Amino acid sequence: MPGPHGAKDIHKNINSSTCALSACSASTSTELQPLMAPISSTHDKTAENGKEENPEKPRSRMQRSRSCLLKAISYFAGDMQPFAKWMQKQFFLLQLLDWVLRGAAQVMFVNNPLSGLIIFGGLILQNYWWALNGFVGTLFATISALIMQQNRGAIAAGLYGYNGILVGLLMAVFSNAGDWYWWLLLPNIFMSMICPILSSALASINSRWDLPVFTLPFNILVCLHMVATGHYNHYFPQVLIQPRSQLPNLTWSEIDVAKLFRSVPVGIGQVYGCDNPWTGGMFIISLLISSPITCAHAVLGSAIGMVSGLALAAPFEDIYFGLWGYNCVLACIAIGGMFYALTWQVHLLAIVCGFFCAYLGSAIANIMSTFGLPACTWPFCLSALTFLHLTTETKKIFKLPLAKVTYPEKNLGFFWNMKKEEKKERAEQEKEEKERQQRATEQEMVLSEKEQLRIHLEKMEEGNVDCSVSESDSERSLDSVVEDTGSKEEVKELSDLDQVIYADCA
Amino acid sequence: MPGPHGAKDIHKNINSSTCALSACSASTSTELQPLMAPISSTHDKTAENGKEENPEKPRSRMQRSRSCLLKAISYFAGDMQPFAKWMQKQFFLLQLLDWVLRGAAQVMFVNNPLSGLIIFGGLILQNYWWALNGFVGTLFATISALIMQQNRGAIAAGLYGYNGILVGLLMAVFSNAGDWYWWLLLPNIFMSMICPILSSALASINSRWDLPVFTLPFNILVCLHMVATGHYNHYFPQVLIQPRSQLPNLTWSEIDVAKLFRSVPVGIGQVYGCDNPWTGGMFIISLLISSPITCAHAVLGSAIGMVSGLALAAPFEDIYFGLWGYNCVLACIAIGGMFYALTWQVHLLAIVCGFFCAYLGSAIANIMSTFGLPACTWPFCLSALTFLHLTTETKKIFKLPLAKVTYPEKNLGFFWNMKKEEKKERAEQEKEEKERQQRATEQEMVLSEKEQLRIHLEKMEEGNVDCSVSESDSERSLDSVVEDTGSKEEVKELSDLDQVIYADCA
Amino acid sequence: MPGPHGAKDIHKNINSSTCALSACSASTSTELQPLMAPISSTHDKTAENGKEENPEKPRSRMQRSRSCLLKAISYFAGDMQPFAKWMQKQFFLLQLLDWVLRGAAQVMFVNNPLSGLIIFGGLILQNYWWALNGFVGTLFATISALIMQQNRGAIAAGLYGYNGILVGLLMAVFSNAGDWYWWLLLPNIFMSMICPILSSALASINSRWDLPVFTLPFNILVCLHMVATGHYNHYFPQVLIQPRSQLPNLTWSEIDVAKLFRSVPVGIGQVYGCDNPWTGGMFIISLLISSPITCAHAVLGSAIGMVSGLALAAPFEDIYFGLWGYNCVLACIAIGGMFYALTWQVHLLAIVCGFFCAYLGSAIANIMSTFGLPACTWPFCLSALTFLHLTTETKKIFKLPLAKVTYPEKNLGFFWNMKKEEKKERAEQEKEEKERQQRATEQEMVLSEKEQLRIHLEKMEEGNVDCSVSESDSERSLDSVVEDTGSKEEVKELSDLDQVIYADCA
Repeated sequence: MPGPHGAKDIHKNINSSTCALSACSASTSTELQPLMAPISSTHDKTAENGKEENPEKPRSRMQRSRSCLLKAISYFAGDMQPFAKWMQKQFFLLQLLDWVLRGAAQVMFVNNPLSGLIIFGGLILQNYWWALNGFVGTLFATISALIMQQNRGAIAAGLYGYNGILVGLLMAVFSNAGDWYWWLLLPNIFMSMICPILSSALASINSRWDLPVFTLPFNILVCLHMVATGHYNHYFPQVLIQPRSQLPNLTWSEIDVAKLFRSVPVGIGQVYGCDNPWTGGMFIISLLISSPITCAHAVLGSAIGMVSGLALAAPFEDIYFGLWGYNCVLACIAIGGMFYALTWQVHLLAIVCGFFCAYLGSAIANIMSTFGLPACTWPFCLSALTFLHLTTETKKIFKLPLAKVTYPEKNLGFFWNMKKEEKKERAEQEKEEKERQQRATEQEMVLSEKEQLRIHLEKMEEGNVDCSVSESDSERSLDSVVEDTGSKEEVKELSDLDQVIYADCA
Repeated sequence: MPGPHGAKDIHKNINSSTCALSACSASTSTELQPLMAPISSTHDKTAENGKEENPEKPRSRMQRSRSCLLKAISYFAGDMQPFAKWMQKQFFLLQLLDWVLRGAAQVMFVNNPLSGLIIFGGLILQNYWWALNGFVGTLFATISALIMQQNRGAIAAGLYGYNGILVGLLMAVFSNAGDWYWWLLLPNIFMSMICPILSSALASINSRWDLPVFTLPFNILVCLHMVATGHYNHYFPQVLIQPRSQLPNLTWSEIDVAKLFRSVPVGIGQVYGCDNPWTGGMFIISLLISSPITCAHAVLGSAIGMVSGLALAAPFEDIYFGLWGYNCVLACIAIGGMFYALTWQVHLLAIVCGFFCAYLGSAIANIMSTFGLPACTWPFCLSALTFLHLTTETKKIFKLPLAKVTYPEKNLGFFWNMKKEEKKERAEQEKEEKERQQRATEQEMVLSEKEQLRIHLEKMEEGNVDCSVSESDSERSLDSVVEDTGSKEEVKELSDLDQVIYADCA
Repeated sequence: MPGPHGAKDIHKNINSSTCALSACSASTSTELQPLMAPISSTHDKTAENGKEENPEKPRSRMQRSRSCLLKAISYFAGDMQPFAKWMQKQFFLLQLLDWVLRGAAQVMFVNNPLSGLIIFGGLILQNYWWALNGFVGTLFATISALIMQQNRGAIAAGLYGYNGILVGLLMAVFSNAGDWYWWLLLPNIFMSMICPILSSALASINSRWDLPVFTLPFNILVCLHMVATGHYNHYFPQVLIQPRSQLPNLTWSEIDVAKLFRSVPVGIGQVYGCDNPWTGGMFIISLLISSPITCAHAVLGSAIGMVSGLALAAPFEDIYFGLWGYNCVLACIAIGGMFYALTWQVHLLAIVCGFFCAYLGSAIANIMSTFGLPACTWPFCLSALTFLHLTTETKKIFKLPLAKVTYPEKNLGFFWNMKKEEKKERAEQEKEEKERQQRATEQEMVLSEKEQLRIHLEKMEEGNVDCSVSESDSERSLDSVVEDTGSKEEVKELSDLDQVIYADCA
């Protein structure tokens, strides 16, 4: 039986599939998704270009095969929008399966059924019974959301399923009744069906600050189940978790470096409560498929957790077992590009958040053990919410509006586009400002010329001026004025003045 | 002395007496309060009808006596508004007594002094000393609210008293110093007087989501007192509560079915910390007087709690003692008709909330016992707040605005009225829409006729038309146009056209 | 080494130096700061007066020396705005030192670098190592706030430093590794640098209710560090704190009255975790320098804590050690004049809050000891936030807008000014109302006179009136009307009437 505090957990990605603002995504995809969907958009472009001219005809084979590959990638990377659209016309049960798979992947903020499929593969590799419980949890959570008439877009993005899979998995992981204890499915189904209610309730609180609910429903419900029944229960006994009451043995000479490195994938596996490094590896692949940035931050987070564990004198077994990693994995993903647009500052912030999360993880694990509870993903939820609450005067740390969150690459596109438009607007404003200034200067020049003419006129009226000179002079000045401003009325006025002059001269 | 974790508890009904929107209540009472106040309104109607005609003269004796009975009921059922109005002109101490009695009943969301009186009767039946402490608590909480200059309407509805009675009662119930330990009145008075401050503070938070504070102030203050002094205290020792540390004995053959059924009224009694089934019975009667829906949900809640206890392998003693019931009682009342308008969907939601509350109750009891604390009514507060935070896209689950909450029957009236008005509005809108469409069609017809005339005219100008025919034709068409639209200007225009035609012909 | 639960703590004063509304402060200082800055403003006044007349010339020596003294005081009392302005032009490191000193004093809501200097003196008197840790904490918290680009005004007021000093100090106080364990500086610096992030995050929540974050970041971070490492840790062991498990020995005959009285300054010292009464005395002086009201409430709070400890049968050692005092000190300061404008009602509220805070302190200490944690300043934070959430219908309890909070004396000035303006407005409104009424009365009088004239006229037309009489009569009445109203038009109308009369007569 896997260890007691076996990790657990996950969160909430509000990349509601409904919010894919078409206008933005079109322009975005052409610029920013070097890996995801560049080909489809390039195709569009070339198709358009093709009508007018066909300059890229002598394409090499290499290029073609590369473009074919990228096109293929574009169909299963990112959030697989084309697939989601295609699914909308399919049989209901197929749709439901799509939602369940997306729900399984949403634990890692990934809205991708293929990733979900790989994750389920990893779970089966770990333990059949756990995988079954996870599937039941996701399924019933999604069904319950349908019954409660929650937002269809959110359901289709798997946002009501990810808490369900964690509830199902972790209830099985922490059960002391052994595998294939079928009665466990009863509380599993009940708790999964409560998930959407709790998600909805927490969202109505968190939405005040435009924040997601992460895996709070899962944390609450699994802790609820575990502490309600406890270790000493006839029907649903839980594994025994007790607080530390003596100095752990810590001999640096006994450290196993191989296991230490293996703790990185294990830490990613512990997000779903799995301690099998191969399972963790499959999870890494599932992340890579959808979003390389997410994948990189997941690995980074797990490494940060391992280092923190060593720094805080944690027992080596806990570190090997991945207990220091899974919260940092999620925190790093959430901060590093998912809810903030990825810049260097945000990347640093994600690393700081990872260390803070590891610290918090140790603290929460110690507190929860007093009640016989595991830490679940409370540390991730609390640290990520704290860092998302941050307000600062720098523009380099930009929190995306929750409705615009999809996946790091697309978020980055949204951010860049926004900045570009801002720049354009600013440039336009500056241009306008400049033009206004120029016009004002010209106006002044015109006025001063008029003034000169008037002075001229006054002088002429005094009879001291040579007419022939004045004529040519005024003619020239008038021309220049017309060229400069093009304002006919003023010119008219000026020529009236001139005519007075001519008349006077005449 | 009754057991330690003896339940306790209550909540908050914001049926501020001030919000009895007169317009609504008048129309409401005639339709929806079959039991409450139908006679008085029927009387009004018959009086009105009587002036015009008197068709109901030959009333049978049966009918009359029935109407008398209903009228009598209308005076003490519901929230007893007529009594509250009459009270406003009475001596201050009498008013205060009214508020204290209403406060005692508000624990169960009932705004009714008669229910309060019966509840105090039940408490006296249970234990004189507890009843005294409860009375002192309610009294000082109400006085403190007056001193703090809180809203008079809320005070008069007992909304500042119900936390006081629970604080007073439960501090006596959990005191280890024995009955008639007079010093206990000191912390009792202090804590009761803090109640309105805490209520006001929590209300300023919860009001952001238009939610009541329920019994949160009581929960906080009693836990505060108990944990501040603890079991090992010279002045105010508390009963010893310890976490479970071994498997409880659970033999199904030893189950006592009679006790199991008796646990339903005991569970209702435990809302006030009483384990006497007769006391619970009196509480049921007090609920029935004010609102049958509330009463039904209270009994349902207690039964749900009992079933949950059996399902989660709780020790039978705890179930018999009503510890599994009281939170579910309150949660079922709150969800089932009090803060949501009662529909079938809401009724099911109340049942789900009851089960969730029982689960949560077990969890919280286990956690609190680590600190030597009872569960108080935390489970009810948290589960009800969670379920009230729920947002959904269905209109069948309608959360009443807090200012309109009174009692389930009246709430239902408010909801039905609202729906009726919505329907009416929609019907009117549809009617308008139809009329507009019809008008548009007619307009088009007119325009097309005008068009025909113009074409006619053009043809005439070409000299190919027979004048006599055109004249009668245009005459006819003009008449029909006038009938259709009545728009004089167009007709004028048309006749101008005609005159041109005539002139042309001439 | 001082005891384990050694107090600790503090809070947040949002007297952002930026908000010193110049308009208000000018008028305020002349009226309300009898001690702070009256001379400077008096000088301004006398200077102004001096131009017109010089009535105060024959000033006695006594007066002059007194004014000099007051002027000197004005430079280092209150929030030392002139010094802050002077500092803005200095070298960055000097500025940073100013911010650090202000941060040290902000623990007690005092924005004054001199107080900060005295406080550091007190800390050095207590323990060099602790003082060093406190300094490091303040320094790095301030630097981190600069890096995170937080509000400059808030940084300059020390609002990002006070959590840092507490984190640094208390991590040293509760460390079980002994003094001069240099590794401790690592977590110290990490936690201090997290402070501004947590402050910013909490502020974004609390600002919804216009409330400060107090010392919540410190509470969270120190508890985090302590529970993450725990007593059984190889690198960062914490002192062992365990829950009470038996009746403490409590013999009233053994009470030491001298120690009891000494517990008042010790309680103030425990705000910074110091148990040296002389250190506490220095803290009192540092408060007195800046704001006598703050100082008085601090002493009052410590006394309230001591009395509460005796009332709740606390072990005498805890009381002597100041553990019952420090939270009440802070709560009394916060409520008594800092965030509410000081009136008698608010003073009473501060006392009630003090008692509530002591009660809460005992409760939280017992709960936290289960996890091996001290109470920190959670009791202060929670009780002060509760009492600041209070809403009431009386105008005597006025919560200052957070942006206007400075120090009690200035807050009081703001409140008085506001009230004066309100009064003026009300007086003006009343005056206008009166004038309007008077005008209306006069209008009526004029109208009635006109009416009389008309009646007169009508009678004349009937030929029954003697013209000579009417003439003089109408003349007189006209004059009186002119005197009363001065409205020429009506008079004109009237004289038209008269002329008609005259004409008629003629």
